[in-house]
Amino acid sequence: MTSPLYETLIVTLAPPFAHITLNRPHKRNAMNFAMMDEIAAVFAALHPRDDIRAVVLQGAEGNFCAGGDLADLAQAAQGMTREQEDRQISRLEAALLAANDAPQVVVARLEGAVMGGGFGLACISDIAIAADDAAFALPEVRIGLAPSLIAPYIVQRMGLTQARRLMLTGERFNGQQALAYGIVHEAVKSDALDSRIQAILDELRQCAPGAIRAVKALLHTVMAHPAAETLAYRASLINDLRYSAEGQEGMAAFLAKRAPKWTAV
Amino acid sequence: MTSPLYETLIVTLAPPFAHITLNRPHKRNAMNFAMMDEIAAVFAALHPRDDIRAVVLQGAEGNFCAGGDLADLAQAAQGMTREQEDRQISRLEAALLAANDAPQVVVARLEGAVMGGGFGLACISDIAIAADDAAFALPEVRIGLAPSLIAPYIVQRMGLTQARRLMLTGERFNGQQALAYGIVHEAVKSDALDSRIQAILDELRQCAPGAIRAVKALLHTVMAHPAAETLAYRASLINDLRYSAEGQEGMAAFLAKRAPKWTAV
Amino acid sequence: MTSPLYETLIVTLAPPFAHITLNRPHKRNAMNFAMMDEIAAVFAALHPRDDIRAVVLQGAEGNFCAGGDLADLAQAAQGMTREQEDRQISRLEAALLAANDAPQVVVARLEGAVMGGGFGLACISDIAIAADDAAFALPEVRIGLAPSLIAPYIVQRMGLTQARRLMLTGERFNGQQALAYGIVHEAVKSDALDSRIQAILDELRQCAPGAIRAVKALLHTVMAHPAAETLAYRASLINDLRYSAEGQEGMAAFLAKRAPKWTAV
Repeated sequence: MTSPLYETLIVTLAPPFAHITLNRPHKRNAMNFAMMDEIAAVFAALHPRDDIRAVVLQGAEGNFCAGGDLADLAQAAQGMTREQEDRQISRLEAALLAANDAPQVVVARLEGAVMGGGFGLACISDIAIAADDAAFALPEVRIGLAPSLIAPYIVQRMGLTQARRLMLTGERFNGQQALAYGIVHEAVKSDALDSRIQAILDELRQCAPGAIRAVKALLHTVMAHPAAETLAYRASLINDLRYSAEGQEGMAAFLAKRAPKWTAV
Repeated sequence: MTSPLYETLIVTLAPPFAHITLNRPHKRNAMNFAMMDEIAAVFAALHPRDDIRAVVLQGAEGNFCAGGDLADLAQAAQGMTREQEDRQISRLEAALLAANDAPQVVVARLEGAVMGGGFGLACISDIAIAADDAAFALPEVRIGLAPSLIAPYIVQRMGLTQARRLMLTGERFNGQQALAYGIVHEAVKSDALDSRIQAILDELRQCAPGAIRAVKALLHTVMAHPAAETLAYRASLINDLRYSAEGQEGMAAFLAKRAPKWTAV
Repeated sequence: MTSPLYETLIVTLAPPFAHITLNRPHKRNAMNFAMMDEIAAVFAALHPRDDIRAVVLQGAEGNFCAGGDLADLAQAAQGMTREQEDRQISRLEAALLAANDAPQVVVARLEGAVMGGGFGLACISDIAIAADDAAFALPEVRIGLAPSLIAPYIVQRMGLTQARRLMLTGERFNGQQALAYGIVHEAVKSDALDSRIQAILDELRQCAPGAIRAVKALLHTVMAHPAAETLAYRASLINDLRYSAEGQEGMAAFLAKRAPKWTAV
């Protein structure tokens, strides 16, 4: 099923997976406000979809996303008060938060330009696979700007030590370097990108859908609170899952050395 | 000296070192509640032991620890209220906290299965040495569960970027990969594991016992508070150590280019 | 321009760059209280200098900095109350904070001894380039002391997992290992150190001076607060920069595919 609802995205649902393709290839998929809003909207629409276990986030025609579309953003701001403009640019934050909040596994397929806001979007993925020759950068500082909206996601992704260097120099680096800097999980030859993503989706068929949702929520909770504050929640979650139909099936399958039923989906 | 006090552990004291061996080899040293309680108890017993500078944590017969013993845990819960069960599973947290709180250097010797709760235990070690072919995984999500009690320790160990991938896929990886993911400090051929651990213990003979305790407390303090809040403590600690008998001996030995007296122990 | 104002430092200003050389080569540039105070003073003096975009921090005659000068520190404490001594040692914190707070890009040139307090100073740099054969260590624990003042900066630099091992063993390691541990950004042959630093400075000519200042402040802000608390600031900062003379020039140059005017400086 392909949705015609979006102007800047191609969204394909094939449960248990969905694909979101950033689709402004004439601009190397740079984000305008419509794209920011549509990213927020599609992740919101997917949020309740229990049948979707993973979302592949990718770009059309050889690039992931070249960042913000500067010309479009400037034009959209004409006639606005400064307050309106500040609210306007916060729509990128809404897109990042919606993606970050996804209860599905977000798999980023990174090739070509992965820059600025596109780099920020890559930073919220659960599994990021880059082409060896992808072109990563935070080029803002070279045009008098700063990667300010995406900064928290950059720092959380790679830690302060790498973030400060990359944010301050704006230097370009490839997929192998992105792996070394702790930004992506794997770097592969670009012609192996599709088969590697497919292999990851096949692995995810073995993971219980409800457990995936529970782990995504768990990750956000432990990042936001000291361990002592979350103990009751963490202890209770294990037992919730043990007594769920899914947990019962999982443990029975494990003890019987057979595949659990969700792998068939 | 070997203690006969424990049912699931072998504990050997040979000051300045202790060895704790997880000892349920027929279950690949998987944890039942008795083992969780005994881990908490042995670290509590070692806490005041100033004569012990380092504790080696290892598993019997080729595995470190395969995780929770699902059958045993389920049986122990029979007839319990849900509240009792939640308290029960928190005994794993007590074990992790006691180990994390050790004033000694905790050295993990990792081979065979290092999974689930065993993975969590590895994550609180100060120095982790893995066999190249050790089998690491957080397989919970593949049986409908979540690594929920150990999640804070996993995230603290390797950061969010690696943690989210490994928790969401349940994939298995070896010691070399554990090194690349920032989980262990070294990966060596399995037949070199003992000699490498021995070399580390020999190095630790050069480290002052009181200073080791001070550094362990310091690490927990700086993790828990912003720098500005700990300045007075940090400044005072340096001077406490400088005026201690140990600090005086250490500085005198350094200036005289001789070994300090604690190396002889 | 070389400043004769400092007793323990050589400070050279050649806008848009400054060089600070730790200059007690007979002590491998170990810090006495005068050096701590002068480091704090020179970074304070550079703070308002909009014409300086980057500061290279280095040591005289083949070493970066061997740590605290123990003999000098002990002598300076004679006749002091313990309270005075605690305040005295906090002068190292003031030096680290002043360097950490620099609005310029701080580039550390690391060779020879990078130990103790010198290691701490390296940990606040934005870009750290080490010689392959530099000698890094936190040797405090081997003389009965603890790296207590610098502990927060060590943990922030490399994360808890590496910090606990290095702080507890005091082991020595080289520049390549410092790269693997996430402490420095590059390790090069020592005879390539100068050309590599020069290449980085040349890259920094392409980065807008005001944007560099904005990114340095941004980094500190996002480290200190949850993302939700900084959204208004981050959104506003982007628009501040877009409407600044520098941002206008940067975007115009980008769209015209020419170099922005600040590269000529």
